[in-house]
Amino acid sequence: MPELRQNIATKEWVIISTERAKRPEDFKTTKEKKEIPSWSEKCPFCPGNEKMAPLATFELKDEKGNWKTRCIPNKFPAVSMEGSLERTVDGIIRKMSGVGIHEVIIETPIHNTNLALLSEHEVGGIIYTYRNRYLTASKDERIKIIILFKNHGIAAGTSIEHPHSQLIAVPIVPHNIRFRNEEALRYYDETGECVFCKMLNDELKFKERIVLETGSFVCFVPYAGLSPFHMWIIPRKHNASFGNITDSEISDLAKNLKIILSKMYYGLNNPDYNLVFRSAAVGDENEDYFHWYIAIVPRLIKQAGFELGSGIYVNPTYPEENAKFLREIKIY
Amino acid sequence: MPELRQNIATKEWVIISTERAKRPEDFKTTKEKKEIPSWSEKCPFCPGNEKMAPLATFELKDEKGNWKTRCIPNKFPAVSMEGSLERTVDGIIRKMSGVGIHEVIIETPIHNTNLALLSEHEVGGIIYTYRNRYLTASKDERIKIIILFKNHGIAAGTSIEHPHSQLIAVPIVPHNIRFRNEEALRYYDETGECVFCKMLNDELKFKERIVLETGSFVCFVPYAGLSPFHMWIIPRKHNASFGNITDSEISDLAKNLKIILSKMYYGLNNPDYNLVFRSAAVGDENEDYFHWYIAIVPRLIKQAGFELGSGIYVNPTYPEENAKFLREIKIY
Repeated sequence: MPELRQNIATKEWVIISTERAKRPEDFKTTKEKKEIPSWSEKCPFCPGNEKMAPLATFELKDEKGNWKTRCIPNKFPAVSMEGSLERTVDGIIRKMSGVGIHEVIIETPIHNTNLALLSEHEVGGIIYTYRNRYLTASKDERIKIIILFKNHGIAAGTSIEHPHSQLIAVPIVPHNIRFRNEEALRYYDETGECVFCKMLNDELKFKERIVLETGSFVCFVPYAGLSPFHMWIIPRKHNASFGNITDSEISDLAKNLKIILSKMYYGLNNPDYNLVFRSAAVGDENEDYFHWYIAIVPRLIKQAGFELGSGIYVNPTYPEENAKFLREIKIY
Repeated sequence: MPELRQNIATKEWVIISTERAKRPEDFKTTKEKKEIPSWSEKCPFCPGNEKMAPLATFELKDEKGNWKTRCIPNKFPAVSMEGSLERTVDGIIRKMSGVGIHEVIIETPIHNTNLALLSEHEVGGIIYTYRNRYLTASKDERIKIIILFKNHGIAAGTSIEHPHSQLIAVPIVPHNIRFRNEEALRYYDETGECVFCKMLNDELKFKERIVLETGSFVCFVPYAGLSPFHMWIIPRKHNASFGNITDSEISDLAKNLKIILSKMYYGLNNPDYNLVFRSAAVGDENEDYFHWYIAIVPRLIKQAGFELGSGIYVNPTYPEENAKFLREIKIY
């Protein structure tokens, strides 16, 4: 019998579809190994080619003065830095000027590497860079939400090889983010507790969906995981905004994230995935009811007409089995 | 300057991204022509192979007694017909038995054809079949919403060649359907008007996003179209539920849908697409505030981390240009 599960925080429903059940091993991708050079003369993200890209907004440098991470405005931005906020509400015409921030975070000078293969220290440098860009964006008075994300691989929406992440900040709070906030606030008003703290504590008690615990962070497959190997990495200590992360938490998150991405890399053969920071809207950074986390979504199945029409997901795997599979993957 | 647009009914936001702007022609897919036979001995949807599939729930027959459309339970159903509704709400454990209906609607006996290539009369027979299955599902007391949909092509989530649609009916109303209903109800309470009627009437006045008008239906690219060539086909006359469609409206919808799918087939070279009926929840079939429609979503771009994290879409084309392009496509 299939099972409908609901996420207590996001209220999303998923059908755990036993009739279509697959084993975790079935999702090991079979990618062709492509020979990619460690430096490419055509890549604007490679060292030496900085002139092919816009001017950097931030660089993290090593002792010799070479950059380790580098941030640049997106050359084809979804939203524009320039311009003021103009809004029209006239019948069905509801529009705003598309102002905002769209940056690329180049994660490493090495063209052909992978976040999963970098050292813990290097991943820490990337998270440090994320925080810098996040806090800088949050100072722009036009900005309401900041989305930090990474698209890895073609199924996840990128064809650029050089490892990079992106930040897009926009002047609106869309309804599905508003909805999550309202639901979290309602839960808090009813119980006096952050619903994400509740989830984390219950998952720690149940244990079966935990993938990895480190000092300050826990990675688990949510009870109502929407797709195979969908994971959350969440800080143990209540904190509404990624921007509030401390230096020592950055080190611990680097450790956690590096191990999780390596488990995916070795266990599922470098799957395409999206990684998204879900953090409070600007101005809500210190609220008691919201809790930031990272969602990792391997792109192993397709969403089709049913998901589009209903908003209900269909997951052909059990979150408990996903977690067990990843726990057992050894990192080399 | 990019433009943020909001759909007055669904409240969804889209960034019309001029920096990444593409012309409608750029989305013409370049599929390899595959030789597919008109009948396949291995296909459980082909005539003569009925024994390979579950027993039919409905068949539409021609004068000779041969089926023209055929409905069967899905062999690997996402939800199960059997069983009673059991629900558990205990902390983060929120689950229900996955009962419901999952049917396949075989659209034609011909293995290698395409909805776009069938006659208006044949498309009418398919819509007639849809209505039959929709009304039958709505009589099941466990069912709250019915999703009728079609996945065409691999990017849309199907690898089965034989033309078919699906119906999935589930015992819950998920929050994003509830949200649309609440927003539509709020608009109705404020203005005394159905927000979808408002959209339709305004689009008819503006004209520039209309793709096709027939007697009872209008096809347009919404002002805040979420992706290239995203279209709605909506009845002119207010009606909350697809199940209420009349026979003469079925004929007119067949005409409209056949032309629209043909324009996509010839103009965009048979793109992969999802087609979804958005209809009132069970029990709300005669409400004044909701209005059913068909959404057609060609799968020409990928949703990535930003869309996942924000719920905001990025459309690299102008809805007005999409509509103009399709208006000008001649059907052979």
